Amino acid sequence: MRPIHVGLLGLGTVGGGIFKVLQRNQEEIRRRAGRGIEIRKAAVRDAEKARRLVAGTNVAITQDAYEVVRDPDVEIVVELIGGTDLARELVMAAIDNGKHVVTANKALLALHGNEVFAAAQKRGVMVAFEAAVAGGIPIIKALREGLTANRIEWIAGIINGTSNFILSQMRDRGAGFHEVLAEAQQRGYAEADPTFDIEGIDAAHKLTILAAIGFGIPMQFERAYTEGIAKLTRQDIRYADQLGYRIKLLGIARRTPEGIELRVHPTLIPHRRLIANVEGVMNAVLVKGDAVGSTLYYGAGAGAEPTASAVVADLVDVTRLHTADPESRVPHLAFQPDSLSDVPVLPMEAVRTAYYLRLRVLDRPGVLADITRILADRSISIDAMLQKEPDEGEEQVDIIMLTHVALERNVNDAIARIQELPTNLAPVTRIRLEELGS
Amino acid sequence: MRPIHVGLLGLGTVGGGIFKVLQRNQEEIRRRAGRGIEIRKAAVRDAEKARRLVAGTNVAITQDAYEVVRDPDVEIVVELIGGTDLARELVMAAIDNGKHVVTANKALLALHGNEVFAAAQKRGVMVAFEAAVAGGIPIIKALREGLTANRIEWIAGIINGTSNFILSQMRDRGAGFHEVLAEAQQRGYAEADPTFDIEGIDAAHKLTILAAIGFGIPMQFERAYTEGIAKLTRQDIRYADQLGYRIKLLGIARRTPEGIELRVHPTLIPHRRLIANVEGVMNAVLVKGDAVGSTLYYGAGAGAEPTASAVVADLVDVTRLHTADPESRVPHLAFQPDSLSDVPVLPMEAVRTAYYLRLRVLDRPGVLADITRILADRSISIDAMLQKEPDEGEEQVDIIMLTHVALERNVNDAIARIQELPTNLAPVTRIRLEELGS
Repeated sequence: MRPIHVGLLGLGTVGGGIFKVLQRNQEEIRRRAGRGIEIRKAAVRDAEKARRLVAGTNVAITQDAYEVVRDPDVEIVVELIGGTDLARELVMAAIDNGKHVVTANKALLALHGNEVFAAAQKRGVMVAFEAAVAGGIPIIKALREGLTANRIEWIAGIINGTSNFILSQMRDRGAGFHEVLAEAQQRGYAEADPTFDIEGIDAAHKLTILAAIGFGIPMQFERAYTEGIAKLTRQDIRYADQLGYRIKLLGIARRTPEGIELRVHPTLIPHRRLIANVEGVMNAVLVKGDAVGSTLYYGAGAGAEPTASAVVADLVDVTRLHTADPESRVPHLAFQPDSLSDVPVLPMEAVRTAYYLRLRVLDRPGVLADITRILADRSISIDAMLQKEPDEGEEQVDIIMLTHVALERNVNDAIARIQELPTNLAPVTRIRLEELGS
Repeated sequence: MRPIHVGLLGLGTVGGGIFKVLQRNQEEIRRRAGRGIEIRKAAVRDAEKARRLVAGTNVAITQDAYEVVRDPDVEIVVELIGGTDLARELVMAAIDNGKHVVTANKALLALHGNEVFAAAQKRGVMVAFEAAVAGGIPIIKALREGLTANRIEWIAGIINGTSNFILSQMRDRGAGFHEVLAEAQQRGYAEADPTFDIEGIDAAHKLTILAAIGFGIPMQFERAYTEGIAKLTRQDIRYADQLGYRIKLLGIARRTPEGIELRVHPTLIPHRRLIANVEGVMNAVLVKGDAVGSTLYYGAGAGAEPTASAVVADLVDVTRLHTADPESRVPHLAFQPDSLSDVPVLPMEAVRTAYYLRLRVLDRPGVLADITRILADRSISIDAMLQKEPDEGEEQVDIIMLTHVALERNVNDAIARIQELPTNLAPVTRIRLEELGS
């Protein structure tokens, strides 16, 4: 049987990785798929460079992306250009032309996934997106297919390698955020404009996708709560350590009786949990299902070949199923399109979690009593406390409290009240805490 | 569409778990599969007990397993009776009758998988076996489908919960093997006859399956090297700790230029590796692919509902694909049946790995020189050494050495020579060591 024909939109880092992996492992992939997978055309900006890369192969190079999505010889379009405007137009055009699509574009799916999947469903084509979340880790497959028996209770993931690298370095070396960020930029782990990574936006894109396929809800990126790591201090990382916790930027999606929690923020995790020990640019996703319990998936969340690994796995899946009855295929969002749920995403104030609070107060009798009263009045109970003795002659003291699970609205309210106390000397630092136990 | 009809062989712990999960999550599963999954018949030993469990449902109970595999109303047979004789007969009969099969039986597949898959292939039916390895962790799916882009380099897994529980307890509490085994038996984590678990046989069954789908080779259980944990001492666990290692019972399959390594044995692993921190009855599998790098899959390796999670995921897969062209299905052993490789499994003597050696010797000048000379003559170089000072008045001393990677044959030979030295006082303890780095 002749190879299936693929067109690439983009032949940069990831595109080059896909080209290399398909070349190097073509025999291994053919032995699995029963059929070859051949890149026939690639749309690029720099045609000269691309021609050098593909020299001696059948890959035609063009600078017009529409030439790829319209080419009758192309059966699967791989979208690697990123962004949400042109990428959306091209993906919709490819679907319109009856092409299957493989994409690594989490922003596109988080923002326009509902529209894209509806169009694909109507046209009877597949849109595969394993590479959009956690790079080479087959987490989309695990959630969509491996855990189908389960009612998913929650998902918690380290799904942004840049911020995890920064937090790991801050803890290992006791360095400050800005110092480590600069180094990450030098080493190519962070972009010149790092906003998407360090503000949690990239993680929220991926979390939106995980929540959709975990709970069978539409993509709702606009409802995700997002808080980044830029305000974290060495001091908080150290205090957390002393209390037996690590701080990670987690994406958390949780099903509650009131609705779905969808939130990205720095989070204290008990240091004994496997996921607390995921260091550097690595990613990991912890999934709690009602039957299976907790399962964890760990690996490289970015990079040319790990991403290529996910894209090529999708290509093999599409190759297997492209002639099959659409009924035989796994639904795009794991659940049948007519069975999606309209359970609401909760506003952050309605979320329940535990908290790390750091207060700077005057070292006077009665101060702690005032604070604990404010907390108790709002049903916030204290699980552990750490009071740093003031230095000689100092009147200021740090109090660190870990609370039991409480309502975010009450905690916000309590913090506002505490900050009004005359003995309170600085804004209260508040970091959320998750036990992530079974 | 009417539900797909399932017949169970066995309704004990796992069968009961499947029944419960299908009942509890029937709506969630139907939303995913687009079709219900209904147990119609179950063959059991104790019909009374089974009838109480399924009271009020459509499940017919029989004591004749052949009634299930022959029932024209049954489309998928789930084999849960274990063992390799009757289970093999029933699975072959089910295939013969055109039923798809889902099984959790690793011994059956490791010993008779080649025959079973050949028959299934010929008859055009699926045999799914996610539950056979690492319980609820979707590792079969990850390897067969999620990592298809990769040339798999090696697989290393904690795939026997009982032995991992025993090793975790020995380390945590400084307790001896037999004490912890007795406790594991009391708590139901170990069988009355624990041979399969503690001697590594169960792990070797699972490793045989992982190696087959990872490398595209037939099942070759009879060539797997198996060494259990019964001889491990508290002392070695403590010495390993001091050197920065944990001891785990690992199943290791590695591709080398000479052939495939297939081996189960206690193994020192650097304590910073995530897999070194997998404790208690939990399982984890680390897979190294040439494109994706290292990925890890962690979760419950046994138990009624985790196993049910894997079986039901297989039922959903079969439900999706049972009417599809067999070409659309994933090949049983991940690779097309006509593309299996005949690369040989290496005998243990031809394996290369690193070693932990513990020697008890007379504390005399020249002893260490004799030993290091014996090692050097056989191309075994030393990476680290720990010498325990003898107690006051004692003449015996423990020497612990970590070697670089060496050939097992040479290490065996060196140990034999060392044991002939008049200054050597006890058999040399030898535990293999794997860095498991990227």
